[in-house]
Amino acid sequence: MGDEERLARIALTRVIEPGDERGGRWLRELGARELLCRLIGPESASVTLPGATERRLTGYRLRAADADPERDLAAIGALGGRFLCPGDAEWPTQLDDLGDARPLGLYVRGVADLRRWALRSVAVVGARACTAYGAHMATTLGSALAERGWVVVSGAAYGIDAAAHHGALAAHGATVAVLACGVDRAYPAGHQVLIARIAEQGLVIGELPPGVHPTPGRFVLRNRVIAALTRGTVVVEAEYRSGSLVTARAALRLGRYTMGVPGPVTSGLSAGVHELLRGEGTVVTDADEITELVGEIGALAPERRGPVLPRDLLEPASTRILDALPARGAVAPGRLARLTGTAYDETLGRLYELHALGFVERHGDGWQLAARTPIRRSAPEGGF
Amino acid sequence: MGDEERLARIALTRVIEPGDERGGRWLRELGARELLCRLIGPESASVTLPGATERRLTGYRLRAADADPERDLAAIGALGGRFLCPGDAEWPTQLDDLGDARPLGLYVRGVADLRRWALRSVAVVGARACTAYGAHMATTLGSALAERGWVVVSGAAYGIDAAAHHGALAAHGATVAVLACGVDRAYPAGHQVLIARIAEQGLVIGELPPGVHPTPGRFVLRNRVIAALTRGTVVVEAEYRSGSLVTARAALRLGRYTMGVPGPVTSGLSAGVHELLRGEGTVVTDADEITELVGEIGALAPERRGPVLPRDLLEPASTRILDALPARGAVAPGRLARLTGTAYDETLGRLYELHALGFVERHGDGWQLAARTPIRRSAPEGGF
Repeated sequence: MGDEERLARIALTRVIEPGDERGGRWLRELGARELLCRLIGPESASVTLPGATERRLTGYRLRAADADPERDLAAIGALGGRFLCPGDAEWPTQLDDLGDARPLGLYVRGVADLRRWALRSVAVVGARACTAYGAHMATTLGSALAERGWVVVSGAAYGIDAAAHHGALAAHGATVAVLACGVDRAYPAGHQVLIARIAEQGLVIGELPPGVHPTPGRFVLRNRVIAALTRGTVVVEAEYRSGSLVTARAALRLGRYTMGVPGPVTSGLSAGVHELLRGEGTVVTDADEITELVGEIGALAPERRGPVLPRDLLEPASTRILDALPARGAVAPGRLARLTGTAYDETLGRLYELHALGFVERHGDGWQLAARTPIRRSAPEGGF
Repeated sequence: MGDEERLARIALTRVIEPGDERGGRWLRELGARELLCRLIGPESASVTLPGATERRLTGYRLRAADADPERDLAAIGALGGRFLCPGDAEWPTQLDDLGDARPLGLYVRGVADLRRWALRSVAVVGARACTAYGAHMATTLGSALAERGWVVVSGAAYGIDAAAHHGALAAHGATVAVLACGVDRAYPAGHQVLIARIAEQGLVIGELPPGVHPTPGRFVLRNRVIAALTRGTVVVEAEYRSGSLVTARAALRLGRYTMGVPGPVTSGLSAGVHELLRGEGTVVTDADEITELVGEIGALAPERRGPVLPRDLLEPASTRILDALPARGAVAPGRLARLTGTAYDETLGRLYELHALGFVERHGDGWQLAARTPIRRSAPEGGF
């Protein structure tokens, strides 16, 4: 994607709300530059777009006139972040399953490669006002998934989300927070430290440009990104008909695995999970049951089909880490960081990428070369 | 079935162990009298039976020689009980689904009609060493099922079984204990009062003749009777791979609904239930979810197809109770008992029979005529 088209897309993240399928269709049919031109160009007052009332079109025009994509690009750059467009090497192509509700792009903070991480990722979500049981389960699952080399995706909310992130972080694992606001914002404010830590050790991503606040509607629509990005969604605690089930239902619609952790029938915070389990959800009680299920998905599960990327196409930093691993035995990530002169968090990020690509395995706290050395042939890299 | 054939069957309950399919096949092929004759008649020493080694045949012969069916019939009669054979009006024909493992007959204590009760019955089973949560759930489900006019079937064991029976009894409901020993025995001994109470207000049944003790194998095989008798089995708490799941698996094989009450993943006593729910079991969290599921089964669900028996074929005691109900409004069973000069427990038993037949409904503690008056036509009465 050319720079102008990319800048126009950044501008449109201030115009088209997450999940706006009409806006997505215009973008698909016209391209970003042309759409933006119709909204703010000299002829814009007389231009119409299919399906848009004049009143709504005015809203689009006003927001487009206010957009300043260079400023947003500078802001995300100042955070050490980047803006990903569909078609970029790092774009997680499974998001394309969302059709015209696909994010226009993603603002990303963190060193890891989002696409590769998402290949082996599971969402762990649930109630904000969770019980001690729910928090325990989310933390345990977050840690155990990370220990098995899976990336834990959640929404950085209070309760289950935070417990899942904390579990993954505590296990020196990979975790992705999908925010319903600009990735420079910490929402909730009480999670400033947690979100900063995720941006260091993992990834903080979102569809909304810097500075933008969350709204109730944006939380709901953020959930579709969590569902689409991951191979499956685990709901740990959720009240009957609660918002936490929105992600689960979105996952179902997208053909992803949808799982629930059962709890006492006497707990209202398990009622929503049981509702899900009485439908199409699958009962899971530990990380092995989760990975057994989601490990089956998709044509490109690297551990079944060999690596999705040949070794000679790896980035130099990844190759350095791979070369530093001995033929036998595991090495702690801290030692690998020192051996290769790479920052600790980047080392971890590269290791999870290499894991997703089938080159390495995690055993306890150490990493080692995968049992079956990947074949060094070129192969297409794809989504699910 | 003639008296001699019936007596021979009673004798064979001391010869053929519950669930012995080879014995069941001989019985089906030869009839009870002929089979018994081959085992204890003058020619018995030279007779062979298909598939029996001489050593096993000796065992059959020794047990047959010891049998005294008149004494067993007198013993069950002294308890106010009876012996049911396949083909009897009170025989629950759904037991025929067990094929050659069908009980030879059933010793029954209690006033109610087993066949009619079983038409609207659900098994509630689970661990002996249950938690307070499991006991609470079993009691609640037992009460709520009874309040909805369903008969609660269980095995009279400590823990979940006892809680389910107690729940049904406390709600002045119908409950059936299926024992793995003679119905004159109280096993476990600590449940002497409970089993006596069930024999008064409900039914105590078993395949084994009076005086016979339970063995581990008999518990397992008893479970197939619980599974076959009922429309579905609910497992409340069960350890991973525990015996409590045998009933559930038997129910699955017989095409009955198999349900589980989820619990905390952190509780070992829910692990077996979750194992079941990860397979073909259905998550249930209250009595409505259970009756919604099992209410769908079968061609003869009375509330969907009208009564299975015309009013003019009811027994006089049932007709008296039906006649005593006013055109509108509910009446407590105690008042009905006084109005009709019927014992309280028999009144309750008749009410549950009338419910199974579609004539009456339970509302709270009262009973009233069913909303849709049953059509007074003759219709075949059958199993599931």
